[in-house]
Amino acid sequence: MQRTKYLLDEDAIPTHWYNVAADMPTPMEAPRGPDGNPVSPDALAAIFPEAIIEQEMATERWIPIPEPVRQGLALWRPSPLYRAHRLEAALGTPAKIYYKYEGVSPAGSHKPNSALAQAYYNQQAGIQRLATETGAGQWGSSLALAGEMFGLEVDVYMVAISYEQKPFRRSMMETWGASVVPSPSNRTQAGRDALAADPDNPGSLGLAISEAVEDAASRADTSYALGSVLNHVVLHQTVIGQEAKQQFELAGDYPDAIFAPCGGGSNFGGAAFPFVADKAAGRDVRLVAVEPDSCPTLTRGQYAWDYGDSAGLTPMMAMYTLGHDFMPPGIHAGGLRYHGDSPLVSRLHRDGIIEAAAVPQLGTFEAGVTFARSEGIIPAPESCHAIRAAIDEAEACTQSGEEKTLFINLSGHGHFDMTSYDRYFRGELEDYAYPEAEIHRALEGLDRAE
Amino acid sequence: MQRTKYLLDEDAIPTHWYNVAADMPTPMEAPRGPDGNPVSPDALAAIFPEAIIEQEMATERWIPIPEPVRQGLALWRPSPLYRAHRLEAALGTPAKIYYKYEGVSPAGSHKPNSALAQAYYNQQAGIQRLATETGAGQWGSSLALAGEMFGLEVDVYMVAISYEQKPFRRSMMETWGASVVPSPSNRTQAGRDALAADPDNPGSLGLAISEAVEDAASRADTSYALGSVLNHVVLHQTVIGQEAKQQFELAGDYPDAIFAPCGGGSNFGGAAFPFVADKAAGRDVRLVAVEPDSCPTLTRGQYAWDYGDSAGLTPMMAMYTLGHDFMPPGIHAGGLRYHGDSPLVSRLHRDGIIEAAAVPQLGTFEAGVTFARSEGIIPAPESCHAIRAAIDEAEACTQSGEEKTLFINLSGHGHFDMTSYDRYFRGELEDYAYPEAEIHRALEGLDRAE
Repeated sequence: MQRTKYLLDEDAIPTHWYNVAADMPTPMEAPRGPDGNPVSPDALAAIFPEAIIEQEMATERWIPIPEPVRQGLALWRPSPLYRAHRLEAALGTPAKIYYKYEGVSPAGSHKPNSALAQAYYNQQAGIQRLATETGAGQWGSSLALAGEMFGLEVDVYMVAISYEQKPFRRSMMETWGASVVPSPSNRTQAGRDALAADPDNPGSLGLAISEAVEDAASRADTSYALGSVLNHVVLHQTVIGQEAKQQFELAGDYPDAIFAPCGGGSNFGGAAFPFVADKAAGRDVRLVAVEPDSCPTLTRGQYAWDYGDSAGLTPMMAMYTLGHDFMPPGIHAGGLRYHGDSPLVSRLHRDGIIEAAAVPQLGTFEAGVTFARSEGIIPAPESCHAIRAAIDEAEACTQSGEEKTLFINLSGHGHFDMTSYDRYFRGELEDYAYPEAEIHRALEGLDRAE
Repeated sequence: MQRTKYLLDEDAIPTHWYNVAADMPTPMEAPRGPDGNPVSPDALAAIFPEAIIEQEMATERWIPIPEPVRQGLALWRPSPLYRAHRLEAALGTPAKIYYKYEGVSPAGSHKPNSALAQAYYNQQAGIQRLATETGAGQWGSSLALAGEMFGLEVDVYMVAISYEQKPFRRSMMETWGASVVPSPSNRTQAGRDALAADPDNPGSLGLAISEAVEDAASRADTSYALGSVLNHVVLHQTVIGQEAKQQFELAGDYPDAIFAPCGGGSNFGGAAFPFVADKAAGRDVRLVAVEPDSCPTLTRGQYAWDYGDSAGLTPMMAMYTLGHDFMPPGIHAGGLRYHGDSPLVSRLHRDGIIEAAAVPQLGTFEAGVTFARSEGIIPAPESCHAIRAAIDEAEACTQSGEEKTLFINLSGHGHFDMTSYDRYFRGELEDYAYPEAEIHRALEGLDRAE
């Protein structure tokens, strides 16, 4: 029988996270406060436990994964690596395509990899409650699951429009015992101000972040938890790439190119960073972060000092950004609608270690349907971005005759995104690429980083 | 690290299906026509290919699984067997609880195990198109996936009320290339008659079956495909129990009792039948089919000759039934709302080889939430029935101090059932147990079998 899956036993779950900071040609700079000076770790202590702050600043290559976190990850990890024989046949390509499927987690994406670690460190620090924000609900549901596993209350500020339009992720969070409140809410000053200005405010991710941060900062028993962007979050995701390397060994193969969707950067970083170590050691592998045409942070943004949230409450980070008040259109890959990008991913892009590609929305759904019809799995709209880029590469191989090995990080399933597929089939989706002038305007006034 | 999962490599996918007919104390009787005489295999040839009809009548113990079917199953099989450490801890029980998770299939349940086999045999027979019915969409989506894999068109008659209320399963079928039409439709005489009588007819599974059968019988290029009840469907599901036996060997354990949800019987039979062989060889294992209180076929129905569909178009089978015009209330475990039961399951129940238990709806959701909050996975409402019965058994173990080994067949995930959980949390669900007089009335006039 043709080999389809490369499975690992749970003993193969990595014992350490890989910290790419140890292998970067340019050292990372600390985040800056409003005065332009580096932020001290103490400033973060109001919202994060010490262990998380240490990981945020860490420079050592390997950071041990606590056993209770590994034990929790074992509920679904190691995730399977698939050889996409049927997709290859459908494309008629000489390329070999592999994908690692993170949709096997109970929440259906890679997000719980970090949620579990964050919940664990907060529990250890005596924190009893986590506040967070969620847009479509991927992160909120992952933290709800993690909170349940480590005995923490979880309060999720969910963007009001999603709260109304995506009730299923909300029910999922409630099934795992979390409380979900539409944002803006009257529980925070930021929320009350927004509601006073407009009682029908549909909310935004930036506003929900402000509410969650304010909530966490105002209560000693409560921490804040973020699902992407920050160094510690990307660190926790490196179990993906480490497992993939073991699985490629089983397969007797090694990728020529890796494709992962990139919004805040934790999915891409989680898959690609462990291969950066190989690259530093001289191995040839392309690492491609795939983003939407409609939110082209890495491909058309600027490397600059900018805030992580739209309201400007967080410290500033050196990263590729379109400006913190950039508002991408309402595309269906909600997880990729972020104005900035992980500082680690940004620095590696700046230094030419990784690549970026931008793909149009219609093309991503077309790729997702091709994938579903060959491999069975219906991918999340975010994952469809990586599939699109990999199919483009596979089709180039068909032209050139090259038998490249391509690796897709399939970040999650699309079970809660069927309305998006529905709208695609009905011809209601469209592409949006920003005119140069509009990008130029967005980047005006940004404080360039080196 | 505490062992959580027992995985098998894809080479361990069974090479044969296990036919329980070979190990039954009482031989099966052939279905009967309206005249009371046995139906000849030829009568089924209008809607099924020969290979399927042969399997329906087969008495040999082992039936080889064609390699293309095994290769297709390898997309998600073998499914994992989990040790439910967290659930055990949450219950504080000395019982050891295991569950096999069929939700890893792309369609999210065990149904594709038979859909793939049926699509394959139809393709081999030169059939180009399959017609089927679906209620909530589990079977329709599974056949859509299988049709896509073997190059067959799939047309699904979907109960109209579900078509409107459960658009996501419909989008899933369309993603896999199937055509979905609300039933009653104007494509069949049965549908046109129903619409003429009531243009707003919300449809029913019985009516959708009539439409699909009429469609298949009227076109030479088209077969009919059924998702449960019939012998060949249950046969195809026996990969579940066979894998489980291998996995229990890995775990160095063996179940004292097996719990599986039972509607048409294919999920229960798939898990339990391979253990019937052990039982026939003298091994002690309880096999418990779990059904809803509100559709108590095995626990309160009668062993009788009855039709498989509500309109009375199919042959009559000897089975436990509540009468083919029995209409269970609209509980949320749509897959368990069936008036009859697999003739194989029924015969084994009649002969005391298997047991049955009925559980109330609220108790099943309570059990599902307990499971989700400990094991992470949000189970389908059907699966919650098996969980409920297993938790009851585990709690009896807490009382008695017995360290029994319990095995749950977790038939699927609840990602498309979150409205049901939502209604449970809002207190909108209720229990319904039939008064004796109502059951008595339902059973009146049934033609008892021995």
